[in-house]
Amino acid sequence: MKWTTKITKVEPNHLVTRGYRQEDLIGNIPFPHVVYLLLKGELPSKEHGQMMDAILTACIDHGVTPPSSMASRVVASGGVPLSTAVAAGVLSIGDAHGGAIEKGAKFLQEGVFRMKEGKTPEDMAKLLVKEAKEQQKRILGFGHRVHTSDPRTKRLFSLAEELKIAGDHTALSRSIEVELEKSTGKKLPINVDGAIAAIISDMGFDWRLGKGFFLLGRVAGLTAQVYEEQTEQKPMRKMFSVECDYDGPKERDLP
Amino acid sequence: MKWTTKITKVEPNHLVTRGYRQEDLIGNIPFPHVVYLLLKGELPSKEHGQMMDAILTACIDHGVTPPSSMASRVVASGGVPLSTAVAAGVLSIGDAHGGAIEKGAKFLQEGVFRMKEGKTPEDMAKLLVKEAKEQQKRILGFGHRVHTSDPRTKRLFSLAEELKIAGDHTALSRSIEVELEKSTGKKLPINVDGAIAAIISDMGFDWRLGKGFFLLGRVAGLTAQVYEEQTEQKPMRKMFSVECDYDGPKERDLP
Amino acid sequence: MKWTTKITKVEPNHLVTRGYRQEDLIGNIPFPHVVYLLLKGELPSKEHGQMMDAILTACIDHGVTPPSSMASRVVASGGVPLSTAVAAGVLSIGDAHGGAIEKGAKFLQEGVFRMKEGKTPEDMAKLLVKEAKEQQKRILGFGHRVHTSDPRTKRLFSLAEELKIAGDHTALSRSIEVELEKSTGKKLPINVDGAIAAIISDMGFDWRLGKGFFLLGRVAGLTAQVYEEQTEQKPMRKMFSVECDYDGPKERDLP
Amino acid sequence: MKWTTKITKVEPNHLVTRGYRQEDLIGNIPFPHVVYLLLKGELPSKEHGQMMDAILTACIDHGVTPPSSMASRVVASGGVPLSTAVAAGVLSIGDAHGGAIEKGAKFLQEGVFRMKEGKTPEDMAKLLVKEAKEQQKRILGFGHRVHTSDPRTKRLFSLAEELKIAGDHTALSRSIEVELEKSTGKKLPINVDGAIAAIISDMGFDWRLGKGFFLLGRVAGLTAQVYEEQTEQKPMRKMFSVECDYDGPKERDLP
Repeated sequence: MKWTTKITKVEPNHLVTRGYRQEDLIGNIPFPHVVYLLLKGELPSKEHGQMMDAILTACIDHGVTPPSSMASRVVASGGVPLSTAVAAGVLSIGDAHGGAIEKGAKFLQEGVFRMKEGKTPEDMAKLLVKEAKEQQKRILGFGHRVHTSDPRTKRLFSLAEELKIAGDHTALSRSIEVELEKSTGKKLPINVDGAIAAIISDMGFDWRLGKGFFLLGRVAGLTAQVYEEQTEQKPMRKMFSVECDYDGPKERDLP
Repeated sequence: MKWTTKITKVEPNHLVTRGYRQEDLIGNIPFPHVVYLLLKGELPSKEHGQMMDAILTACIDHGVTPPSSMASRVVASGGVPLSTAVAAGVLSIGDAHGGAIEKGAKFLQEGVFRMKEGKTPEDMAKLLVKEAKEQQKRILGFGHRVHTSDPRTKRLFSLAEELKIAGDHTALSRSIEVELEKSTGKKLPINVDGAIAAIISDMGFDWRLGKGFFLLGRVAGLTAQVYEEQTEQKPMRKMFSVECDYDGPKERDLP
Repeated sequence: MKWTTKITKVEPNHLVTRGYRQEDLIGNIPFPHVVYLLLKGELPSKEHGQMMDAILTACIDHGVTPPSSMASRVVASGGVPLSTAVAAGVLSIGDAHGGAIEKGAKFLQEGVFRMKEGKTPEDMAKLLVKEAKEQQKRILGFGHRVHTSDPRTKRLFSLAEELKIAGDHTALSRSIEVELEKSTGKKLPINVDGAIAAIISDMGFDWRLGKGFFLLGRVAGLTAQVYEEQTEQKPMRKMFSVECDYDGPKERDLP
Repeated sequence: MKWTTKITKVEPNHLVTRGYRQEDLIGNIPFPHVVYLLLKGELPSKEHGQMMDAILTACIDHGVTPPSSMASRVVASGGVPLSTAVAAGVLSIGDAHGGAIEKGAKFLQEGVFRMKEGKTPEDMAKLLVKEAKEQQKRILGFGHRVHTSDPRTKRLFSLAEELKIAGDHTALSRSIEVELEKSTGKKLPINVDGAIAAIISDMGFDWRLGKGFFLLGRVAGLTAQVYEEQTEQKPMRKMFSVECDYDGPKERDLP
């Protein structure tokens, strides 16, 4: 029963992560670069490191209403340790919350793979939107409940251009945005999940890490929210005025 | 039913965290500084920002054996999403795993508070070790199962000195180390949890955030471990050769 | 590295739990009796088995507003598997939610232990209420946010009398109720957590299992709620109209 | 913002679940019947109630080695509340652990639906095994890592026959077992997940509740295991002698 790992070697007084001694990393390599090292196996270039840093910050917090914040706050309210409440927020990260990074990246990576046959991003986008329409599938990473022009998206894309990271996946993503508008008649701008999906794909990350980027940034906001709940509110406070209609069976006696 | 929060204001196309527009933070302020902003309410000085960065990296990963890694790996093995498995690891962060940061910081902060009566760190340490002995309580943050001279601890303390962050809490911590050896006859060096407890206390953080620092760094390693488990191993693999003796009641018939 | 367990022996085609073959238990011993067997090591008497059954049902569900229901619903809304969402609800079971069973049982068990010196429940109750007042501590298990005369409590106590299970802990609990009213001038009736705390103590259970009884019943309601959420609602539905005032720092430029 | 629920109506001193007053259910209706009521909306017949009871017991515990037990034990070892550790075990219930109930039930329900065209279970089984082979898909619910003749499976099926619950889904399941042996040349007996999948389908349950049955029984064993860990072991005990080879990059200096 032997395990093998490529992540960390632990010996007495000696910790080596992806080849580097942890005491060398600590305080010398910026934490987002260390995250990159953990996920990719190698330290990033300066540009990739800065992009990773930007992505983490783009995920930190979206106020109290997303499922992750609500879950963390509500669980904190039950009177549990801070880490338990933060974990509850992480649990809500699923197909509908943060999941568009994973699914969007998969979609873009498969699209770019098919572009190798010689298609331009525009051609490929046209084809993908057509296919999605025929199969009645939604393309994830476009449109947002709150934002029509998400400031995080703009900032991430301009940074990706500036750092010369934006490539085929970003181009395909932008072309899909254009085609979606033509096809549906509605503006469905790339949202922040979609932007991250494109950029991590251009950085060479596996789409299966998609939810990881989101959670690595979001735990910062969740920790702040749990701390605020625990220090400024009472446990079991009345959080919501949920009016709830019961429409089950009428009151009845046991048979 | 109105909530108030000091963390993030969300309006259409406008996200303001602790006063700063998120698009200004993204890619301009290093992520560990943004974490500091979230937890403390203000951006750090250059020195505090660098210290925060170092603390996060010091928590990233300790191989496959700690409860958090094991929990994440085992849960991943059940065939669940990456975020669920990472959350399971966070759940194991408790009094015995990472918890010494919280309890250690509380202990040091109470000790330094009592030093205001005019005591030196040495006097206070003597008194605290004596009290702990009388009450048969363990002082947390000293001694380690694996490391006698943890390279992370040394690096964190030397950085705290260099950045002029080390203050009363660090001094008290070092004095306790000396007194513990005198009192027990054993070397019980400050461990990495104890070092972080002292340094975040010198940085002015509330001890109740203790588990937060640990989890914010550790999620990076947990994400890497879950990804490695999901991509290089089969679900439900035989992970352990646990030999298990059953010493319950002998096999019997129903009454 | 050998484990020992008193719970289940697993051999090929042979599963023995607390001494009984699982195929003998299945369908022959009622599930709540099997739960009792798991927690106590022995099958219950008919009366204890029926009481255990009643306790589990008393914990099943309290509508959509408790933290556990909210957490399960909110996490389900993120688009995760049913079991993940149910687990999130279980996470909220803490000192403030369900926790009064554990703490209440501890309090009663310590009280009854002290009665061995020859005190009546009335004397002991008087003393405990006086001590709590002096130490400004709340006695848990009395009073409820919604119910002044909880139908579950009445039913559990009358069943405990009928089954001749009610003993010293129940008597002490009732006396504390009387003394609390004398001491505070307010009616603070025993709540359902307090009733369960008293009854499981009279059944000889360790107070450290307190949260277990609550969660074993509550998972039934949580599973129903997650299923209702997943089948009758869309993911990421707008669940709450939380009005949220941001009272953090005013919008500002980066320094 | 109005919710509707068919589960429980909560009013002061009045709790109505699926139409029944909770005080009427408590101690009068066996808990497994109440679980059925919660999941299905109506109280079960005597036979369905007994079958539900048997299914819950069939899921209670499988010793210390499954991911759920391991996750609960490991997380308990971090020094967290009992409910947190039990929840960690529930998190591991996924596609590979307990998930065959959900997927197996879906498969059988779709198969029986297609039998309406006039096919016998034998014909349908032949077709399904052929299709699976062509699509290189595994049919879930057959074969087990430890048991070749699982005593739980036999007991559940004989009870389902006796209670006249076994119907088309059970028949189809048994036919698939025969066809799988013909097709692969190996015995792949229906496992306990597969048996439950067939029986709950014959009871008219939605396959989407599959993981629910497993977790509702398993939390009993997990609670016992966490309690055993917390009361008989030290926190952070050395649980495994995992030998771990590091095969990542060789130790190296920072660039």
